Amino acid sequence: MYRWPKVSYKEEGLREGMQIEDAHISVDDKVSLLDALSETGLEQIVVGSFVSPKWTPQMERIDEIVTKFNPKPGVTYTALALNSRGVERARAYSPPLTIERDSFPRLTCHMCDVFVRRNTNRSQMQEMERWPQIVAQAQELNIKEAGIGCNASWGSNFLGEFQVDSLMTLLEKEHNMWDEVGIKVASVAMGDPMSHCTPAKVEESLYRVKEKWPEIKHFRLHLHNGRNMAIASAYAAMRTLEPEDTLELDGTIGGFGGCPYCGNGRATGMAPTEDLLHMMEDMGIPTGVDIDKLIDCVWMAEGIMGRELFGHVSKAGPRPKHLEQLYDIDMPFVETLEQATHFKKGPQQYEGGIYPYQEPITSPYRDRVEKGQPNYDPANGDYPWKQDWFPSK
Amino acid sequence: MYRWPKVSYKEEGLREGMQIEDAHISVDDKVSLLDALSETGLEQIVVGSFVSPKWTPQMERIDEIVTKFNPKPGVTYTALALNSRGVERARAYSPPLTIERDSFPRLTCHMCDVFVRRNTNRSQMQEMERWPQIVAQAQELNIKEAGIGCNASWGSNFLGEFQVDSLMTLLEKEHNMWDEVGIKVASVAMGDPMSHCTPAKVEESLYRVKEKWPEIKHFRLHLHNGRNMAIASAYAAMRTLEPEDTLELDGTIGGFGGCPYCGNGRATGMAPTEDLLHMMEDMGIPTGVDIDKLIDCVWMAEGIMGRELFGHVSKAGPRPKHLEQLYDIDMPFVETLEQATHFKKGPQQYEGGIYPYQEPITSPYRDRVEKGQPNYDPANGDYPWKQDWFPSK
Repeated sequence: MYRWPKVSYKEEGLREGMQIEDAHISVDDKVSLLDALSETGLEQIVVGSFVSPKWTPQMERIDEIVTKFNPKPGVTYTALALNSRGVERARAYSPPLTIERDSFPRLTCHMCDVFVRRNTNRSQMQEMERWPQIVAQAQELNIKEAGIGCNASWGSNFLGEFQVDSLMTLLEKEHNMWDEVGIKVASVAMGDPMSHCTPAKVEESLYRVKEKWPEIKHFRLHLHNGRNMAIASAYAAMRTLEPEDTLELDGTIGGFGGCPYCGNGRATGMAPTEDLLHMMEDMGIPTGVDIDKLIDCVWMAEGIMGRELFGHVSKAGPRPKHLEQLYDIDMPFVETLEQATHFKKGPQQYEGGIYPYQEPITSPYRDRVEKGQPNYDPANGDYPWKQDWFPSK
Repeated sequence: MYRWPKVSYKEEGLREGMQIEDAHISVDDKVSLLDALSETGLEQIVVGSFVSPKWTPQMERIDEIVTKFNPKPGVTYTALALNSRGVERARAYSPPLTIERDSFPRLTCHMCDVFVRRNTNRSQMQEMERWPQIVAQAQELNIKEAGIGCNASWGSNFLGEFQVDSLMTLLEKEHNMWDEVGIKVASVAMGDPMSHCTPAKVEESLYRVKEKWPEIKHFRLHLHNGRNMAIASAYAAMRTLEPEDTLELDGTIGGFGGCPYCGNGRATGMAPTEDLLHMMEDMGIPTGVDIDKLIDCVWMAEGIMGRELFGHVSKAGPRPKHLEQLYDIDMPFVETLEQATHFKKGPQQYEGGIYPYQEPITSPYRDRVEKGQPNYDPANGDYPWKQDWFPSK
């Protein structure tokens, strides 16, 4: 019924995820996970960050990881670097790394002056002070299209909620600077490091951007999930954007992750990749990802971290659609999470479960499906509407 | 920007939640949880179910629970009963129980013939066979408004995906039966016991119902969360419906729950009440619920179950909006889930955490907020746009 934007997805588990986990997780474990992720069909994977090991010991051995992993042709591997020293370190590993550059020169700042000071040791004012320089550089390079953006777009744990009006006013300031030099604005980025996104606010923000600047066709959202709003917000974004638009989204397998500066730690999280991509496939947005292999990665990550992560599809399994995925109609009770893994591990998981039926379950619907017929006919088809037993009244 | 429907919310933790948990959880624990839920502002609470203790031993002591709990005036307490014996048992406790009746005589059936056989020991055909009797009764009672509905509306773990076309055709069959006797259809119910909902399908279904039968103003959705789609689907429903519409939604604190018949056990879940209601409050849909007390209930439930539940707001805390909720801007690293509980337990939770700053964090924005001023002025206000430091270029 609806037409969706193009969606480009980036897996952040090795970066956003691992940066808030135990610093002693081994290089081998991280490399195994990265190699497994490479086999899922994911097109963009962040391998970690080149940052100070003093404050982020979780990334101390990033050099070993990028040396040891098996780059898969066709996959783009990037790493986060927050300053020129970090970029320089990353360059030593390119290839296999692609040095992450924004597709557009971008004027951006954090709406939360506190968070940017805590996280990167500079103020919002210092971010803004760089704007004229970014514009001048773009002019020198004769750049035709530029970007605008805000981080902490909808609110802050330190300053409270930001009105969409305020977000729009900041974006407008940025847009005006590009207008003044005649460079077209083609992209907007909105970040949410402190999990203040809601689908209603994301929708309103994107709608207003599109209404005000219809020439913007490129949208980037980096949403955190501390209040469980990342998937609903991503859906709202897909619903608001159009086929001519491109939406860049990030998330992590299992939904783990966060940063130590935001105040929510491991409770921050992101959209669980497996849940979000499984939704997209159902909507008809191709992801190219093998959900079964992705679930293997979540389970591997849970083994490494020694605890259950936040995602759901890895626990209940994907929605069975095809005959070979359908559950045994005569299966006994399934109660525990361990039993629920039968979708992957097989019927022995629920063996010995309570069996409450006096006779085996049968159903004419399942018989049809077993024969390769659809469960229901399309409207006005034969089944079940024209069966003898179908009540006419 | 948008106008939302009226939303009516029912807490299902004691029923959908507890029915898939350890049968040995004590009556006292359940009564304590129920009494705590009663103090949150929730208006509708399901206390459990009157079903066979043979197959649902978790509900064996429901009589003791309804005898011991402290009914709060203004709260509607209901219990599930699947047959006349169950209704009879429940009646013995009314009041305090309200005997749950659908507001409308309703023609409904499960789209999944397998699930209804597994769960209630009857077939879809047997459900349909009751339709003429329901219509006849409504005529006798001179009922003016009736309902239609489908359970397992979007798919089944045993039969696969159901097309929205098929759902609409079934609803149409039901609608036609009311049309034939001249009784107006005012309500539609859609259930999802096997977690096949997606926001796109929920939106399409509601949109098509509204388009086809604009006189339907009452909508009921019972969504499960095995694939993490319940909150996004609930949002999509709120987005699709209008202020003239009423939307009934169900969920459980912490998002726990499920049934042993669907094949996903405890991985089934529902929308976590605290996450969903916190979203609604942010959207301007009043819930009357104290989120802080609700989080107390989640923590209590986690203590009873001995494990972490699925919800997020109970881990990261609500989005801080008011001065007294804002985090200390000079707080050290927050990394673990235990440290993250500072939002409720106080700063001692993160005491001793890594402190990476050479000087205390300060910010002119926070200074403003401390003085009771807004973090940003409304568009075209003074701050920060007219500060000396604000870059004009």
